[in-house]
Amino acid sequence: MPVAAIIGGGVIGAAWASRFLLHGWNVCFYDPASHSEAVLHAVLDKARHWVPEIYDQLPPEGSLTICESIAEAVVDAEWVQESTPERLEIKQSVLRDIQAACSETAIVASSTSGFMPSELQAGASRPEQILVAHPYNPVYLLPIVECVPSQLVPLATVERAEEILRDIGMKPITLRAEIPAHVGDRLLEAVWREALWLIKDGIATTEQIDDIMTHGFGLRWGQKGLFETYRTAGGEAGMKHFLEQFGPCLQWPWTKLTDVPDLNDALIDRIVEQSDQQAAGRSVSELEDERDANLVAMLKALKQQDSAAGAFLNRVGAADA
Amino acid sequence: MPVAAIIGGGVIGAAWASRFLLHGWNVCFYDPASHSEAVLHAVLDKARHWVPEIYDQLPPEGSLTICESIAEAVVDAEWVQESTPERLEIKQSVLRDIQAACSETAIVASSTSGFMPSELQAGASRPEQILVAHPYNPVYLLPIVECVPSQLVPLATVERAEEILRDIGMKPITLRAEIPAHVGDRLLEAVWREALWLIKDGIATTEQIDDIMTHGFGLRWGQKGLFETYRTAGGEAGMKHFLEQFGPCLQWPWTKLTDVPDLNDALIDRIVEQSDQQAAGRSVSELEDERDANLVAMLKALKQQDSAAGAFLNRVGAADA
Repeated sequence: MPVAAIIGGGVIGAAWASRFLLHGWNVCFYDPASHSEAVLHAVLDKARHWVPEIYDQLPPEGSLTICESIAEAVVDAEWVQESTPERLEIKQSVLRDIQAACSETAIVASSTSGFMPSELQAGASRPEQILVAHPYNPVYLLPIVECVPSQLVPLATVERAEEILRDIGMKPITLRAEIPAHVGDRLLEAVWREALWLIKDGIATTEQIDDIMTHGFGLRWGQKGLFETYRTAGGEAGMKHFLEQFGPCLQWPWTKLTDVPDLNDALIDRIVEQSDQQAAGRSVSELEDERDANLVAMLKALKQQDSAAGAFLNRVGAADA
Repeated sequence: MPVAAIIGGGVIGAAWASRFLLHGWNVCFYDPASHSEAVLHAVLDKARHWVPEIYDQLPPEGSLTICESIAEAVVDAEWVQESTPERLEIKQSVLRDIQAACSETAIVASSTSGFMPSELQAGASRPEQILVAHPYNPVYLLPIVECVPSQLVPLATVERAEEILRDIGMKPITLRAEIPAHVGDRLLEAVWREALWLIKDGIATTEQIDDIMTHGFGLRWGQKGLFETYRTAGGEAGMKHFLEQFGPCLQWPWTKLTDVPDLNDALIDRIVEQSDQQAAGRSVSELEDERDANLVAMLKALKQQDSAAGAFLNRVGAADA
């Protein structure tokens, strides 16, 4: 059985561990925080409950080893996933410790949502071994992972990384160039910024904005992305015609509102109050269970739609064979 | 049977007509374009195929009357839906013709994606009768509709509008204040602007961006919106803690990229080329069928998730009783 080392627990690291375990990898887990094992088992319990629902069959679960040091965790690993706090000096230090002990042929991936691989590689002993593999929460269910090498990473390493990510049921997208925050989080940040303005200006509540997403374009984007949606909306006149019509809209007054809103105490309090009302007493664990039940139902439903050019079979990865 | 007048065909008007017909309303349809009847029947055929799949039962279909004038179409209507081209002078002129012939008690709604109700009401004989009801494509399947009255519209009119929209299986969200482009299209515009930069700078292709959406946050947003997702991600520490951590991110370098990109010929050509490659020969009609099959599968799956606080039952509206 291949070994994956998970360095740094928390929700993301724990979900990476769960994904590797459920797809048959052995996992060596290291996090110095005293509560990290409890978090790991809570996430693993949820993953064990939900993940088998979207696969016809899964391999036998791998073995889990809780390690006392980074060196112990990474020594036999083919894949090392770093999911420590989002501070560059922490990540660089952890990566140094990882590379001091891991195999030269291992892939060392970072879950960073913001940093570019070249930043992580700076000062590393073997920069060509390090790349970004940025997943989305809940990592044990959502297939997407942004794979970002720098120009120092050989193509063979990138291809091996993609192969391993597909082996654990993921859909790796390897970006053509590095950029801070990669692709998805840049799009999310754009939405977040606009949503803050809408709350601040009293146009809609958090619940209304969420409803507009979930009952509208969220459903669209669960199965067709921005560009294919617009291609479809453009009709038989074609994408070029559609884009030429779209151009002027970018100059409309409402597109100028691109300032960064001040997330001050008043705005935080307003969002918290509206969000509390929206949650109506449901705990975070209950919200997680709702989310996972919904995602599993959607993934199962989309999997049946193999008429859709087979696109959705990819969602559940190669382990489905 | 109540009567809805659909003024202006095209994909949006035709889909409004289909939604009303399939929920048992009689429809009077007017569009001066010679091909509008063909568009109407093409859309209606698709709606007849897909809509019954998400309901346990539907009322008998209403009758369709093709009218020769706005006056003929609106004279008996309880609801008038204007879906003419997105130019203010056209919409104001059509609204004048509508109000010259329709009942004073009818609701006159506009599908405008950008204009505020106060702009549409300017110069109208009965401004208090006009509001925005902005739907999302495909209108016969997606439940969301943004309802935007101005301060001139009485509360009773707004409530009646919401009731009618729910009657045809929609989820009306009435905004607290008017703003150009309402809520959803402002969020979409933010994503579109960022996506254009990513294509222009060669970070990812249209297909990669779409894949990141459909296999990642699109699935999230198909069932939980931005705020509930972040509340869940924040964990037991709560929304306030999460927001306080989030604040500094808004000042990170990558959030400053809020300029409006120039959608020039070179960028248009690049998008068209990538989009053509992504479509791999599938026609727009095939893409529509894939989209609708997927949406129906997702809606049916989510409907079963009544554990989710009943939220998803709302997706398929009151006609489901």
